[in-house]
Amino acid sequence: MTQTTGLSGVFSPVLTPFDAAGRPSAERFVKHCRWLRNQDVGLAVFGTNSEANSLTVAEKQQLLEALLAAGVEPSALMPGTGACALPDAITLTRSAVQAGCAGVLVLPPFYYKGVSDEGLFRYFAGLIEGVADERLRIYLYHIPPVAQVPISLDLIDRLLDRYPGIVAGVKDSSGDWNNTSAMLERHAPRGFQVFAGSEVFLLRTLRGGGAGCITATGNVNPGPIVELFRHWQDADADQRQAALDATRGVFQRYPMIPAMKAAIAWQSGDAEWRHVRAPLVELDKAQADALCAELEKVGFNMPDAKSLAG
Amino acid sequence: MTQTTGLSGVFSPVLTPFDAAGRPSAERFVKHCRWLRNQDVGLAVFGTNSEANSLTVAEKQQLLEALLAAGVEPSALMPGTGACALPDAITLTRSAVQAGCAGVLVLPPFYYKGVSDEGLFRYFAGLIEGVADERLRIYLYHIPPVAQVPISLDLIDRLLDRYPGIVAGVKDSSGDWNNTSAMLERHAPRGFQVFAGSEVFLLRTLRGGGAGCITATGNVNPGPIVELFRHWQDADADQRQAALDATRGVFQRYPMIPAMKAAIAWQSGDAEWRHVRAPLVELDKAQADALCAELEKVGFNMPDAKSLAG
Repeated sequence: MTQTTGLSGVFSPVLTPFDAAGRPSAERFVKHCRWLRNQDVGLAVFGTNSEANSLTVAEKQQLLEALLAAGVEPSALMPGTGACALPDAITLTRSAVQAGCAGVLVLPPFYYKGVSDEGLFRYFAGLIEGVADERLRIYLYHIPPVAQVPISLDLIDRLLDRYPGIVAGVKDSSGDWNNTSAMLERHAPRGFQVFAGSEVFLLRTLRGGGAGCITATGNVNPGPIVELFRHWQDADADQRQAALDATRGVFQRYPMIPAMKAAIAWQSGDAEWRHVRAPLVELDKAQADALCAELEKVGFNMPDAKSLAG
Repeated sequence: MTQTTGLSGVFSPVLTPFDAAGRPSAERFVKHCRWLRNQDVGLAVFGTNSEANSLTVAEKQQLLEALLAAGVEPSALMPGTGACALPDAITLTRSAVQAGCAGVLVLPPFYYKGVSDEGLFRYFAGLIEGVADERLRIYLYHIPPVAQVPISLDLIDRLLDRYPGIVAGVKDSSGDWNNTSAMLERHAPRGFQVFAGSEVFLLRTLRGGGAGCITATGNVNPGPIVELFRHWQDADADQRQAALDATRGVFQRYPMIPAMKAAIAWQSGDAEWRHVRAPLVELDKAQADALCAELEKVGFNMPDAKSLAG
């Protein structure tokens, strides 16, 4: 099996814009992806912060097709393709691989809780054997606070033993630095790319030999995050990290997805950006006003944000 | 909006049989549903114990069509139609209503955790308005140990206020009698049908004015459960309940879904019944042998089980 160098850098789980009727807005989605690419952010479309599990398989395929038709380069794409139903994961992953996407980010099946590593191994093995394409590069998506189904260190060992090259890395959204650190020590030496699940851990991850981060706030604060990635060995790296943490801290005081959408609505002047799909709820006016005031205080600014308007 | 009398009785979240290649076995599914109907058990197909979230939308639609084509009466059907993506829930619910199903059992969207009642209200409202059919009868599926997203008493009030008649009842799989009891006191007087999520609570639920139970072990021990439903006011009801609890207790010492499938494989003589879909794992031989030995001790027997073989 071909071993290739994995992905690295700053990726964003791209927000999915909806229109007033609740339909995905492919137009705004393409614009947002272009804006992110202009700032050298990779596109982890269909992640948690993309409301991916609130989208149907067909909606995800249509959005991916819209990006490709608009000329977004597949080498910058790492779509989320995990699903509770293995055949859905195979369908989405196959579409991504055939489109030439650089990798896929795969949630474990997340309905049943307390499942065994053997069961999760069979799921990932079933996905890999089902897609049956040497170009496949899987990034495991460890996000126990939301999925409630962890991907253990032992499971990663077992997948790397059985599918070297195909199992390419991880996004660690545990929020537990000890876990990221363990992956860096145990799996990174095998060519396994470890991405922090938040830019809060970006500097520590890079210092530990990791690949970068895949982070929600990449949607709204990409420039400074990418700058830290580029200059992490510079003397001012800790200072840059502190600035990132301050901006992140503001968003984390609100429900993250509605808050990021409110920030884009504000900066782009396009109120349609506020829409989310149930069970999420958009920020109310008081919350949005408070958010914007807090963001102004930390010097938040999205360059060329008008280009995001639908 | 028309008010009708809701469903009552014993329902089973029907196990979904798979073949060796992991495909749903429509043949065994139809046989199992007929066997359950012969014992007067209602068919809550596509529930948690049906591995419903491991099935695609298309697989569920095909299995439902197979049942209808085989002459299973839609008035006995309460398919699970909840999904993380609202459009999927609308598609599945619409199919069920158009097929004449008596009701649908609806999980809340279960990926995001800690969501608000407002967000969940919007989900159920979006489903009801999206299906837009007066025949729709929704049974809310409260199963916090698995979904990790509860349906609160306040949310039920709000849904009953807005959609009386359409919001018809609940399956309470919280395992918390205080919660079931609160629903019986607060919502049952409004014509809301409260089903216990396990036969362990069947007698208490009926004594409290509830509608019955929707229970996993209805798949394998239907006769005695239905007998308690029929004779719950008889002098020997507590004794019957104790016997049900003993059989249930055996299954609960194993992973429930693989254990029920192992029991059917044993009783029917059809080893194919053991298959589950990842992330679940079938019982190994030692576990299956131990289960069968324990079941023999409590006098477990599935009448006419040979009819379940594929």
